[in-house]
Amino acid sequence: MNHQDEYRVIAEFSMHPLGEGTSLSRYVRSALDELRKAKSVRLSVNPMGTVIEAKSLQEIFAAVQAAHERVFKEGASRVAFTLAVDDRRDKRRRMEGKVSAVS
Amino acid sequence: MNHQDEYRVIAEFSMHPLGEGTSLSRYVRSALDELRKAKSVRLSVNPMGTVIEAKSLQEIFAAVQAAHERVFKEGASRVAFTLAVDDRRDKRRRMEGKVSAVS
Amino acid sequence: MNHQDEYRVIAEFSMHPLGEGTSLSRYVRSALDELRKAKSVRLSVNPMGTVIEAKSLQEIFAAVQAAHERVFKEGASRVAFTLAVDDRRDKRRRMEGKVSAVS
Amino acid sequence: MNHQDEYRVIAEFSMHPLGEGTSLSRYVRSALDELRKAKSVRLSVNPMGTVIEAKSLQEIFAAVQAAHERVFKEGASRVAFTLAVDDRRDKRRRMEGKVSAVS
Repeated sequence: MNHQDEYRVIAEFSMHPLGEGTSLSRYVRSALDELRKAKSVRLSVNPMGTVIEAKSLQEIFAAVQAAHERVFKEGASRVAFTLAVDDRRDKRRRMEGKVSAVS
Repeated sequence: MNHQDEYRVIAEFSMHPLGEGTSLSRYVRSALDELRKAKSVRLSVNPMGTVIEAKSLQEIFAAVQAAHERVFKEGASRVAFTLAVDDRRDKRRRMEGKVSAVS
Repeated sequence: MNHQDEYRVIAEFSMHPLGEGTSLSRYVRSALDELRKAKSVRLSVNPMGTVIEAKSLQEIFAAVQAAHERVFKEGASRVAFTLAVDDRRDKRRRMEGKVSAVS
Repeated sequence: MNHQDEYRVIAEFSMHPLGEGTSLSRYVRSALDELRKAKSVRLSVNPMGTVIEAKSLQEIFAAVQAAHERVFKEGASRVAFTLAVDDRRDKRRRMEGKVSAVS
C-alpha cells in the first residue's frame, strides 16, 4: 500500500490569543512553527485557519497541543482555539481531493 | 477611497448535510454555486470550508442563507453548518493579507 | 398548529473580543443583553456559548448581528465569533428535546 | 491548594456522524457514555454540544478521542466534530463560573 492509499484525518485549527492586542500574526507564526515540527502532518494555511492532514487523530492532537503550548510560551495568558475534524474511513483521500471534488 | 482601503469582514463557512450519505461534494458544489451568485463577496475554497470576504456581516449572512437554503432544495432534510467570523475595524485588510502576514 | 409544533432552527453563538484583556464577561453580558432584545428567540447560556432557538435562520442572524455590533459599541475593535447552526426540517423539536434525547 | 484552586481547561465538543440518518441521538449517547468513563473530566450537556472541563488539554483530547472512536464502533463511517477550547492561565475558574459571571 503506498502513501496515497492510506486513510487520512483532515482537520482545521484556528487559534486566538485573548488580551494580546488585535494584531496576532506573531502568535500565529509561532503556532505554525510548532505545527511544522510535526513531520507526520501536512499543512495548508488559509485566511481563517490551518488545515492539517495526518494518518491519525492522535498525530493531529499532538501537533495542536505543541502549537497551543507555544502560544503561551510566547506570552499569552489566555488562548481560545477551535479544531474541526473530518475523519472518513470509507474512502482514501488527501486534503487536495476535498477541494478538487467541489471545483 | 479605493477598494483596497475599505474594511472587510472575513469569515469561513463549513457545511454538512446529515443523513445524505458520506459523499457530500454534490451538496458542497450547490452551496458554492449559490455563494458565487453573491456578487459582493469574494470566496476562497479550502479542504475544510469556504472563506468569504465581504464589506459587511449582512452580505456574508445573505450569501450563507442562500447557500444553506439551496442544500435543502437539493434534497437534504437536516443541515449543520459553522460560520466563523473575524471582524476587524482597526485595520484595512483583505483575505490574502491574513495569510501573507503569517508566512 | 401550536407553538410546540413549529420547526425550529437551533444554533450556538460564541464570541471573543480580541485585544480587550483576558476578562471578557463585560462584553459577553452586553452581547447577551442584545440577544435578549430579540423577542422571537429563546436563549440558553452555557460555559462556552449561548444556544439560540428561533423559527428561522433570519431571526438568528438578526439577533447575532445586533449582539456583534453591540460589542464594538462597548469598545472592542476586533471581534471573532463562531455560529454553529443545526437546521432540521424532518422533525419538530425544541432545544430542550435535544438534551433529553441523549440523557 | 484545593481542587477549587487549580487551573482548568474548558472545552466544548460537538459531533455529527455523516450518512447515518438525521436522528443522531443514539450516537451522541454512545459518545457521552465514553466521555463519562474519563474520571478526570467534568461534563455538562447542552443542546449543541457537551462542555468538558479538565485540568489539562491532554485529558480533554484523550476523552474526545475515546468518544470519537466509539462512534465508529457504533457503525459510522464518517464523523465530523468540532472541539472549541478555552485555556486561561491567569485565573482559576470552573465551568460554572463562566456562566455566573455573565448572568
